[in-house]
Parts: sequence; structure tokens; C-alpha cells
Amino acid sequence: MTHARRTSTRLADGRELIYFDDSEPYVSSGATRRLDDPRPLGPRFAPDGPAAGPEMRRDPLTGDWIPMASHRMNRTFLPAADACPLCPARRGSTGTEYSDGEIPDTDYDVAVFENRFPALLDVPGLGHETTLVDGEPLWPSRPAAGRCEVVCFSSRHEASFADLSPRRARTIIEAWADRTAELSRVPGVRQVFPFENRGREIGVTLPHPHGQIYALPYLPPRTGAMLREAARYRERTGGSLLADVLAAELRAGTRVVLESEHWVAYVPAAARWPVEVHLAPRADVPDFAGLNDAERDDLAHVYPTLLRRLDRFFVDPATGEPIPLPYIAGWHQAVVGEGRELGRLHLQLFSVLRAPGKLKYLAGIESGLAAWISDTTPERIAARLQELGREDAAAGPSSAADTRTAAHDTTEEPTR
Amino acid sequence: MTHARRTSTRLADGRELIYFDDSEPYVSSGATRRLDDPRPLGPRFAPDGPAAGPEMRRDPLTGDWIPMASHRMNRTFLPAADACPLCPARRGSTGTEYSDGEIPDTDYDVAVFENRFPALLDVPGLGHETTLVDGEPLWPSRPAAGRCEVVCFSSRHEASFADLSPRRARTIIEAWADRTAELSRVPGVRQVFPFENRGREIGVTLPHPHGQIYALPYLPPRTGAMLREAARYRERTGGSLLADVLAAELRAGTRVVLESEHWVAYVPAAARWPVEVHLAPRADVPDFAGLNDAERDDLAHVYPTLLRRLDRFFVDPATGEPIPLPYIAGWHQAVVGEGRELGRLHLQLFSVLRAPGKLKYLAGIESGLAAWISDTTPERIAARLQELGREDAAAGPSSAADTRTAAHDTTEEPTR
Repeated sequence: MTHARRTSTRLADGRELIYFDDSEPYVSSGATRRLDDPRPLGPRFAPDGPAAGPEMRRDPLTGDWIPMASHRMNRTFLPAADACPLCPARRGSTGTEYSDGEIPDTDYDVAVFENRFPALLDVPGLGHETTLVDGEPLWPSRPAAGRCEVVCFSSRHEASFADLSPRRARTIIEAWADRTAELSRVPGVRQVFPFENRGREIGVTLPHPHGQIYALPYLPPRTGAMLREAARYRERTGGSLLADVLAAELRAGTRVVLESEHWVAYVPAAARWPVEVHLAPRADVPDFAGLNDAERDDLAHVYPTLLRRLDRFFVDPATGEPIPLPYIAGWHQAVVGEGRELGRLHLQLFSVLRAPGKLKYLAGIESGLAAWISDTTPERIAARLQELGREDAAAGPSSAADTRTAAHDTTEEPTR
Repeated sequence: MTHARRTSTRLADGRELIYFDDSEPYVSSGATRRLDDPRPLGPRFAPDGPAAGPEMRRDPLTGDWIPMASHRMNRTFLPAADACPLCPARRGSTGTEYSDGEIPDTDYDVAVFENRFPALLDVPGLGHETTLVDGEPLWPSRPAAGRCEVVCFSSRHEASFADLSPRRARTIIEAWADRTAELSRVPGVRQVFPFENRGREIGVTLPHPHGQIYALPYLPPRTGAMLREAARYRERTGGSLLADVLAAELRAGTRVVLESEHWVAYVPAAARWPVEVHLAPRADVPDFAGLNDAERDDLAHVYPTLLRRLDRFFVDPATGEPIPLPYIAGWHQAVVGEGRELGRLHLQLFSVLRAPGKLKYLAGIESGLAAWISDTTPERIAARLQELGREDAAAGPSSAADTRTAAHDTTEEPTR
């Protein structure tokens, strides 16, 4: 962790806030600029014993654990339109600093903090014991221990990940690696999942560029299915399923959309979403913490390049302008504990937009059966992304990040 | 099948259309009113050999089969605003009959037909053989054989299932039973899933009351998970998981929201949706075809009663008016073939509406990990439905369908 300066502090209610600074002079957490969180937030946990936290129950029909975040229904925190909670604190007109958001500094590079209304929360002293709902063995219940964090990608409200300089993207990768390593050490955590929801089409109400990290105390269904398939594959062939899928995609070539020295992006052969692309390191790496510097540096170029292409995937037929893609980007990492050896870091990025103005809705088949019907083919998605790659290449080497020899972009963030 | 008259015919392109008539004089398929489908639709299958149908590929990461309905992207069928494809044919001003919809009769009670743009389609002569995408054993592919049907609940465009008379609901139950029995006999079909998507919040573009039936040639993930859990439970206890869950809900009582002689509705102890209710027969019945007449009669009262309560679950704070609930209603039935003995008919009805005007979006956690976080508790959902049940009871026995002795409503559909 030599790339960015890491500073950990606490918000008024005790939540952890971590700055990752990459630009000198360090603004956030710098002695001259630092604000203490001035908000009148009480401590989250009663000093005289364990408070109640969220509960999770096991669904006997499917075996899934369902956290019940009913305490989130009491959210009082609805920011006014002009008060983005992820923007840095503003300098007051009287010269005093003022903060009504989550980040009590007048600027920052990348900031990570605990979600104020988390679905998963490890309440000190509460333990992780199983109880029974109504005394019935069919319905075990446990505290929904775990952690939900918010990752602010930039202090600029109007930015998007695709716009960020490689330097800033590199800092976010450092933050993901830091959080993965640290959250993996929390007792009971089974999976650390960094993800970004982007676009109001999927319910995002805060346009400020940010992602989230869930540290889950159980294996969710998709992860369970991936471990099951990887274990069967290893038993049958002795090989690594995820490594062999990547090798097969490279062999087929048809759906590979971007290659760099250390990374490969491809539309998987059984893609289920209207737009879907996976991005994986060439080397067998379990998680962000396991990436070496060269792989991190490379990813800081490759990932924004991929995002910029996706933002041109659809074109508004009325204006001819590209449509910024609403997307979900989830980083699947090796689990913590049993099954860890079967995991391999990869991004699954997908969109519910199936045409300009047309969404894929998740109704009876998807939400009732967890079955997916694709409205397109992986080859069509890949052909469009390959076309955009050729456009980038024709536009010159500076925009063609899949040129293996491309020197690293040294673009800085705009001057503050 | 003595309740309704069943008549099977064909649409212009060869698709099957089945009428279920419960009201004499039988209007649909009656000799004097019958229209042949006058539309210039060509046959779906080339006479000189198998046409290409939809493909499905196995996702090696999860083991899921993904049908690729890319042929549906060529849909030419976009009804004009005044031409609902599910409304009956209109009598032309010149006295000739005219149809631009799917049902070539001037009225009908309940009609079932094959979806014109199905995700699953068994093309005659095509077979069900497995091939390999790119020649790679990791990516098996098969024809997405199966069948997708549309069930028109009423000829009245503005009706909803909740409004239907018990007589009409009974006819729909007959149609579900008929289709379940028949589709279960189709070679390769593993699950028959009748469902209804209601409300534009989940992407429903045709307000005309209708449901769908998918006959799937594979077991989708939720069904696979339910079979796995039921098999483990049987091995551990010797019991039936679904029967024991119902017994435990009745024992606990807390979340039971409606009871009749043959049916019980309850909010499951690990409900995951903002509104979720299950409805199951008291007896061990595998599917609709296995229900006896008394159970069908009873369901024809209980189900619309439950739906009417759900349509009062949320109240518009501005007007004080109840908000018709957008919902997904899926009937889980015993699978066909291996695992059949583990299944038991039950309805899972749920909504993405978590408050007036507020939807639950399925983003990174749900769509990326298939994990669900509930924003409420099952007990809160149940308390609201129990409150609505008490209101019904106070309004008099005619609206209290959970009175075991309630005589069957004899309300007819409005006179044509």
C-alpha cells in the first residue's frame, strides 16, 4: 500500500471513515483542512450493552439467508436536493467550515465509510448465536452481522467512474484491495463484494459517483452456485473452472472485447443480461488484495476504457447521442474460508437496458423462478463492443487502452 | 373436467387456442358466432423441414440454463393503442366480423393460446440434442424446447382477477389444471409454472387481465434450490418440507392471514419481498391437476378474496384511496419426473412496491449475488393483512371468504 495515503478516522456516531489520498498536497485529513464531524449524531451503540441490530432468517424452502433490514425503514436521512451527502463539506460564508454530508472535509480523493443505514451490522457484544423464530427449528435466525460500506469514487458530483483518470481509478483499486483484506479478517465474514449501481433506471437516487462494499456473513445463492459448479468441475477434471472458462473464451475469441497485458474482457458464452461483460485477470488471483502492482496499474486503464465503451453501447435514435449505460458492476472474489481455493477474481458487469428507453423487467420468470431468459445473444453484444473497440483504435492510440504497449495515461484530476 | 366446456382450435399460424366456457349460451366457439382467424399470418414452421427455434445455453459458472430468445427482438407485433390483442374480436360496422387480436371470437369466458413470440418453443423435427458452443465442452447448447402460453382471465379489458366472480375464477382454475396435466405430458418438460404479472411497475404493458404458463425443459434455480432443501429435509427427518412448513405456520399462527376449509394463506417466516404471501392447500397436492372439486371450488373464493385484500394493502396518502398492488403471482407445482415426490402446490405472491410510490429495485445485491435483503419483517406484512381481514369480517359475512361456512357466491359476470 504505497500508492495512496490511507487515513482512518471516525464520524460523529462512531462509524469508520477512511480516506485514500493520491494527490499532494493531501487535502482530506490534512491538518489545516480537517473538520471534525460537526453533526449532532448520537453513538450507534448504547454504552450499557448490546443494542438490537438487523436480524437474518433462513428461508427453509431455498436455504437462503434473508437479512431483514426493517430498521432501515426508519431512515430519517433524506438529503435536500442541494445537499448531496457524498459531496465534500462546503466552506461557509462566514469562514467557518460546515458539513451536512457524510464527509467532513472540504475535499477528498477517495473516501470509504460505513453505511449509516446498513443491511448488515455487527453490533458489539451481540454475538452470532442462532435462535429459532417461534421456537420452530425450520426457521433459524441470527444477527445479520457484517458490514456495509460506501466508496466515494471522486469528490466531483458530476463525475462517473468512466471519466476518472487512471491515477484516481488506481486509488479506488487500492481502496478495494484494502477493504477486501481488512473485511476478510472480520470474524464470520464469508464474502466481500465490491459493487457499483449506476443509473436511476436501477433505483440509484444519488448520482454522485460511488460504489458499495458488502461484507456478508453467509454465502448468497449465486456464490453458492458458483462454488458448487467449480467444485464439481475440479472433481471431474482437476482444473479450475474460472481459469478454464477464461482460457476457452480466449481460444474461441469470438466474444473477447478487450485485452491488455494483464486483463481480458469478454461477453460470456451464456450471458443472460441484455448487456453483459466479464473482466478477469490473466493470472489466477483470488481477490483484489492478491493483485500485484502491475495488475493494478493495468486495471486502472482497462476498466475505465471498458466503461467508456459501454457508455456508447446504445445511441439515442432521436439525437444520435450515446446513452450513458445504467449498469450494475459486481466484483466476484474468492470467498473467505471453505471454498476459497475455488474462487478467482472477476467482474460481472451488466445492464437492464435492452434498447434505448426499454428496460428488461424482472417479473414472474426471473423473480419467481430465478430463471433468466436472454433477449439477445452473447455474440451480438460482443460484436457491438468489438465495433466500439475498433472505433477507439481508429481514433488513435491514446484512446486504445487495449494496445498492450500503451503507456500509462498521466492525466491528472482537474485542478481543484 | 365437467365444470367448463373446453374447445380447442387453431390460429391462422397454427398456434393452439383453447376456450374454456362457463356461461351458456356458449359464446366463444359457438357455431353461430365463430370466426376463423382472418389474419394473414404464415405458418410458424416451414413445411419442408425444421426451422430454427430459440437456443438455450448452460452457464458454466452457475449451472443455469439460459434460453436466448433473440428471435423475439424481431417482434413486429406492437398493438395500436386502441387494439388490445387480448380483447375479443369486434363486430364491424358493415356487419362482418373483424379481428386484429389473438382471439377470433366476439366474446369468450377464458381463453388460452400459445404465445406468438415465445421464449421456449418446441420446433417439430428439431429434436433436443446437445451441441457445443465453439466446440467447447464448457458450453453445452440445446434447443429451448418447451411452451409459453397466455391465459386470458376475462374478455373485459378493465377487469382484474380480484374482481372476477367465483364462477369465472373456477374456470381459470380448470384451465390451469387442464394445462398442467397436458403440458406435463409433453416430452422433455420438467416444470409447468402458471403465473401472473400485474402492474406497469413490473413492466406489464397489456392491462387486459391475463396470466402466462411456462412449460420449462429444465429446472430453474429456485426450483432446484427447493428440491435440494426438500430432499435434505426428507433425508434428515423423513418428513415433507412443504407440508411441515405449512403445519409450523399454522402452529405459530402469527403470520396466518386467511384460512378456509381447504386453503391457508400466510406470510412465510422468512419472506423476502416488501409484500409477500403464500397460499397452500391443507392437503398434500402436487399440482393443479391433483386438486379435487371441493378444493377448486374453495380456491375460487379464497384467491380473489386474498387479491382484494392485497389491493388495499397500501393507501395513497394524498387521496386516502387504496393502491392496486403491482404483483407477481407464481404457482409452484411438483416438477415432472425426478423430484416430483418432493413438490407440493403453493402460490408465492409478492410485490416490489415497498411503500406508495416507492419500488424495491433489484440491483447489485439481488441481481449480482441473487441475495435478498428484506426492507420489512414478515410479521409487519402479516399484521397489515390480518387487519384487512378484520375489516372484511366487520363488513359482513358476504365479504369474509375465510368464514368456513360461507356459501359460494353466485354472482355472474355482467350480462353481455
